[in-house]
Amino acid sequence: MTAKPHSVLPSPLQTAKLLAAEFALTAVERDERGGTPKAERDALRHSGLLALSIPTQYGGLGARWSETLGIVREFAKVDSSIAHVFGFHHLMLATVRLFARPDQWQPWFEQTARKNWFWGNALNPLDTRTVVKDFGGWREFSGKKSFCSGASDSEMLIASAVDETAGGKLLIAAIPSGRSGITLHNDWNNIGQRQTDSGSASFERVRVEESELLLDPGPLSTPFACLRPLIAQLTFTHMFLGIAEGAFEEARNYTLTETRAWHKSSAEDVRQDPYVLHHYGEFWVALEGIRLLVEHAAELLDQAWAKGPNLSETERGQLAIAIATAKVAATRQGLDLCSRLFEVTGARSTHASLRLDRHWRNLRTQTLHDPVDYKLHELGDWALNQSLPIPTFYS
Amino acid sequence: MTAKPHSVLPSPLQTAKLLAAEFALTAVERDERGGTPKAERDALRHSGLLALSIPTQYGGLGARWSETLGIVREFAKVDSSIAHVFGFHHLMLATVRLFARPDQWQPWFEQTARKNWFWGNALNPLDTRTVVKDFGGWREFSGKKSFCSGASDSEMLIASAVDETAGGKLLIAAIPSGRSGITLHNDWNNIGQRQTDSGSASFERVRVEESELLLDPGPLSTPFACLRPLIAQLTFTHMFLGIAEGAFEEARNYTLTETRAWHKSSAEDVRQDPYVLHHYGEFWVALEGIRLLVEHAAELLDQAWAKGPNLSETERGQLAIAIATAKVAATRQGLDLCSRLFEVTGARSTHASLRLDRHWRNLRTQTLHDPVDYKLHELGDWALNQSLPIPTFYS
Amino acid sequence: MTAKPHSVLPSPLQTAKLLAAEFALTAVERDERGGTPKAERDALRHSGLLALSIPTQYGGLGARWSETLGIVREFAKVDSSIAHVFGFHHLMLATVRLFARPDQWQPWFEQTARKNWFWGNALNPLDTRTVVKDFGGWREFSGKKSFCSGASDSEMLIASAVDETAGGKLLIAAIPSGRSGITLHNDWNNIGQRQTDSGSASFERVRVEESELLLDPGPLSTPFACLRPLIAQLTFTHMFLGIAEGAFEEARNYTLTETRAWHKSSAEDVRQDPYVLHHYGEFWVALEGIRLLVEHAAELLDQAWAKGPNLSETERGQLAIAIATAKVAATRQGLDLCSRLFEVTGARSTHASLRLDRHWRNLRTQTLHDPVDYKLHELGDWALNQSLPIPTFYS
Amino acid sequence: MTAKPHSVLPSPLQTAKLLAAEFALTAVERDERGGTPKAERDALRHSGLLALSIPTQYGGLGARWSETLGIVREFAKVDSSIAHVFGFHHLMLATVRLFARPDQWQPWFEQTARKNWFWGNALNPLDTRTVVKDFGGWREFSGKKSFCSGASDSEMLIASAVDETAGGKLLIAAIPSGRSGITLHNDWNNIGQRQTDSGSASFERVRVEESELLLDPGPLSTPFACLRPLIAQLTFTHMFLGIAEGAFEEARNYTLTETRAWHKSSAEDVRQDPYVLHHYGEFWVALEGIRLLVEHAAELLDQAWAKGPNLSETERGQLAIAIATAKVAATRQGLDLCSRLFEVTGARSTHASLRLDRHWRNLRTQTLHDPVDYKLHELGDWALNQSLPIPTFYS
Repeated sequence: MTAKPHSVLPSPLQTAKLLAAEFALTAVERDERGGTPKAERDALRHSGLLALSIPTQYGGLGARWSETLGIVREFAKVDSSIAHVFGFHHLMLATVRLFARPDQWQPWFEQTARKNWFWGNALNPLDTRTVVKDFGGWREFSGKKSFCSGASDSEMLIASAVDETAGGKLLIAAIPSGRSGITLHNDWNNIGQRQTDSGSASFERVRVEESELLLDPGPLSTPFACLRPLIAQLTFTHMFLGIAEGAFEEARNYTLTETRAWHKSSAEDVRQDPYVLHHYGEFWVALEGIRLLVEHAAELLDQAWAKGPNLSETERGQLAIAIATAKVAATRQGLDLCSRLFEVTGARSTHASLRLDRHWRNLRTQTLHDPVDYKLHELGDWALNQSLPIPTFYS
Repeated sequence: MTAKPHSVLPSPLQTAKLLAAEFALTAVERDERGGTPKAERDALRHSGLLALSIPTQYGGLGARWSETLGIVREFAKVDSSIAHVFGFHHLMLATVRLFARPDQWQPWFEQTARKNWFWGNALNPLDTRTVVKDFGGWREFSGKKSFCSGASDSEMLIASAVDETAGGKLLIAAIPSGRSGITLHNDWNNIGQRQTDSGSASFERVRVEESELLLDPGPLSTPFACLRPLIAQLTFTHMFLGIAEGAFEEARNYTLTETRAWHKSSAEDVRQDPYVLHHYGEFWVALEGIRLLVEHAAELLDQAWAKGPNLSETERGQLAIAIATAKVAATRQGLDLCSRLFEVTGARSTHASLRLDRHWRNLRTQTLHDPVDYKLHELGDWALNQSLPIPTFYS
Repeated sequence: MTAKPHSVLPSPLQTAKLLAAEFALTAVERDERGGTPKAERDALRHSGLLALSIPTQYGGLGARWSETLGIVREFAKVDSSIAHVFGFHHLMLATVRLFARPDQWQPWFEQTARKNWFWGNALNPLDTRTVVKDFGGWREFSGKKSFCSGASDSEMLIASAVDETAGGKLLIAAIPSGRSGITLHNDWNNIGQRQTDSGSASFERVRVEESELLLDPGPLSTPFACLRPLIAQLTFTHMFLGIAEGAFEEARNYTLTETRAWHKSSAEDVRQDPYVLHHYGEFWVALEGIRLLVEHAAELLDQAWAKGPNLSETERGQLAIAIATAKVAATRQGLDLCSRLFEVTGARSTHASLRLDRHWRNLRTQTLHDPVDYKLHELGDWALNQSLPIPTFYS
Repeated sequence: MTAKPHSVLPSPLQTAKLLAAEFALTAVERDERGGTPKAERDALRHSGLLALSIPTQYGGLGARWSETLGIVREFAKVDSSIAHVFGFHHLMLATVRLFARPDQWQPWFEQTARKNWFWGNALNPLDTRTVVKDFGGWREFSGKKSFCSGASDSEMLIASAVDETAGGKLLIAAIPSGRSGITLHNDWNNIGQRQTDSGSASFERVRVEESELLLDPGPLSTPFACLRPLIAQLTFTHMFLGIAEGAFEEARNYTLTETRAWHKSSAEDVRQDPYVLHHYGEFWVALEGIRLLVEHAAELLDQAWAKGPNLSETERGQLAIAIATAKVAATRQGLDLCSRLFEVTGARSTHASLRLDRHWRNLRTQTLHDPVDYKLHELGDWALNQSLPIPTFYS
């Protein structure tokens, strides 16, 4: 009698698709409600997908980034809030992997895989209100922090604070979310990405051990460490693509089942209306372009990640360009699609029960993370001057 | 003892601006709430502006259409739902004026002016579910009707029904909203224009007298009668412009008071950021273009209205072209502005308390009334073939 | 015996239309040939239109600027090179009117009207290679100058030189084109505006009398004097509009007479092809928007001109905004039209004998005079910060 | 003494790059001149690249389509006329390969490889003026034909004629260009693609043998045979991409070496001007998107070609979609780039000696081959209805 072969287990993508189908059933209602998607977060915990990007030797599924981000995109098709916190979870894991010592991140990886920990974000380099105080063997973080996506209902947090005694140096730590002194305000109530819990947090004399600080090699210290912001940017880009793909599919289903040809159309059936087809043709061209740019960037990330510490500045820079390119295209063409789709679904599709506007609201909200104009500036500097972007937390 | 000189009375526009300032205080909250803006509707009743377009000899303010629509635009800057029901009220008055006999519309005008009646809409030529039955001296309307903007809390309704015995001829009547058999379902809950009460109505054997039918000259019977759909289209266009202007102003205030320059900007202050200025420059060019197109069309409407029964088909057609031109420009450039404005206000401006997305939601909803693609088709037929649009309830 | 009634004389616009019809016959051939349109320039001389903007008391036709620029637009519909040199001629007259003393410009006006002088341009503030040397009672201009539109075959030139002893101050003079030391190189050979003679000139110790210098009130010295660059910008804008209108008309004639419907079209006749109509509809919306913006700016210029020395900085600034707005719209939408028109005329319309590309080439060339990006920058500074443009030779 | 190792022979791409560098030296002059690029065509003959797509067993270089089209793109960067006739040559070879019997095309392939034959086009399905007459053992083609790209200076022609006795069936033949009765009028003189010799031909009782007719399997007879129009469309698409890439490179060189920052720029050097960088950033995003779409389609063509007669209708249809997608994107974004590039090079870059407008003229001309609107229609039918394009000579 033999064990069942490995291949009958569902792949991560299959698991994700099943979860996505579940999430889709309540996505509209949850978009209205906002707040923490507790049941969905727990479903992610139980699915094992929180260990997706963790190498198998630490108990994870050992997925490449292209796979992990492919699943972010899959979730974003139906629920970009879930996609966001799921993607950020893996970004936080990448953060400890890239900024800390193996004796730090290996146990975190193992525990995450074993206990299905969810990691949340309290790192925001532009919000300098949280400061650090050094007590010799340990430090204290105190102050406020905004845009803490996925911090609610998380087991671990990546938190940053400014060391004013060291010229404003950014210190980053990985700490349990439940540690004394941390308050999450559950105050995220925005027009889009409504279940990302991207609200504010307060740190009141939160004790941080030396072993929790990500100092070696530290933030943005090497080209390899500088992959961290690129993973963040490419996570967004996969979300943007997924949102646009989901919006397209929902529009398509609506047109096919609900929309009637305008009474002046040369076509009996809306499916043959020349202007409706024109819009769908343009949507297709836009989506195909984004798809290839995103997949190309994800392949380059896999290659860069595989190089590890051997990754050169130039290689890292070229990856940055590929990601920025995909991000700009996904931002602009995605927004156009999410706004214009109503022209192929018609007046009745504005009924609030559909919340068909949520695609635009989600994409509009998330595409403001950092200005698309400055991504274009970077791309222009590359295209004209062959200058690669200088790594920051946004490039 | 002298009478107060005329000039100290506020002009209709001044009255409207005061009302608009009031409406603005609660517009965000009411956008969230939806439903009937009862207090605001009553304020409109008390203001006297419901008699704005009624000639002075019938107790009205005798405003030209350009004035009436200018006030629609003024309301739309802060609350496009109010603008909608206010504009539709005057459209309903135009409907009886254009489709009925003087001995019908004159008393309606007088009563409207005296009693501050609010008129609502239950005319929808594309929704043929309401049918008419002839009982000799009177008729019965039975069936359902969708998109009945402003019907709730109205005193009078313009309602349509299909006469199946006369080849589907459209009959239109003016009836008291409270007449037995009329049910307004208060079921409008859409992504935009949330306080327009544009929901559905049911007619259950609603008795309609012959004197309430708009048969002489009847719908779209003469070039002058064919101004009715043009007034509808130009009302929308003023709403679109007002929405875009209001969105611009709100974005501007936010940028000036809240937004910070991106850390990679060459400017210290966001007010001098080259890309922020570029967006504002483009917004300005778009708004100025729409403003002139809209004002030009409104002047032509004043001229056409003044011609009355002498209006020729050609003159009516050229007005139709001017209105369609303004509508297409306002639709496209307005949507772009309402979506893109977030790029000059930034990530924090997505907070739900601002509901800064409502401009896009309102405009997106209302611009779907009839497809912009078919307006362009009409304009193309004019531009290429010199064919003027054939009058319908949409052109 | 009765005098001929005044009304039988052709109006300036009628004269211009007759001339334009003549110019149209050879415009394609002359676009190919380039060089100086000597016959056409002489026809302009004989028409009396070179005195168009000159007040009647100096022998001119006393046209308002809106009329003069309307004729620039009329010429641009068929030949934007002619429009250019004709517009610049009147700009040169405005230059002496605005920068010089009455005892200087009055005789120049009278002689221009009497002798049908043609004025050309050798003023280029960004080209600082021509310098001035002071000899007490007179000066010498020496050096090179580029972009001297309309200098060839002219009787008078407006020339500029830099006074290096006065911190680089710009000196401007009105001098006979035939004066000793002036060489026009007839070297303009560009992709568009091919008969504008916008080539280079050399000044070799050209003597300039004090009475020829435009020093009182001098360049850009008062708000009224600062109308000069605005007249230049609005002249361009009228050219852009005229080019777009001419391109539209030529495309329309071609579609109607030559183009066949694509074999997969739902329409038998190209005139009813849905996509062809869509393009024409968009062209119409674009053209109408530009037309109103341009005409609005021209009206404001008439008003500003009428105020003369009483013109305030704010009034001048608001005119500058109106002109910049029209210019940006005409640039962008004109270029789109001139490139896209081929999609409604088809593959055969690329035959060189039509030179249907000349509209794009002309518009592309002339719209580069100063960058549209910086016009948008100015407009953004106005829209966001209510800062009016600081007068320069380009704003 | 040993033979030189194979590896020192230049690859076809290296050969093409060397040729392209030669062609670049005279491209501007030849664009002006028009006519047949005899020297360049002979250089192509001598290079061996006319045998590029011919399998090695017939004496060719055995290149995959992606390689062959990659070289079309390489030529298009510097000279899209050369790219055109070179691409069409290989398209003609594909035509005989796909429509004829092996005993027909194998000798043609061998002779082409051995004698460096150049094939030209006289196949134009929409031009039905050439008719066929059947004389039993042979036929006669008589009539006119337009758009015969590359027919001049060719050794072989693919010619079509309509068989009116067979309901207008299209007959296609491969015949020597020098056969009696064929006149090439050398009358191509268009605004772009000026050295493609795409003029007209006359057939006066041209005898065509049965063995020269491509009847088995015949035109568009199988999914594999239906690759022919797709190869044509993808050849165009590679030309469009190459033109855009070449235009970008030329603009970039000009900006870096010639253009100065506008005097109101915040940057000293044009290389850091924010708006110049913005344009270059947008150009980059556009080019990267097109590049990936084009390369993706070329890979799919390689796969489809490799399947030969086993290619299914669905596989062929999906390839058609990939090619149409790339073509639409390359058309639109390429035209935008070729027109807008002047905004980053400036007014002086319009000098005719640069002929920097030729990129727009070439792309504008070639993108009219079949309407982009109907490509979008096909893509819309796929995106909305999952209907694959029905094969024709244009889809």
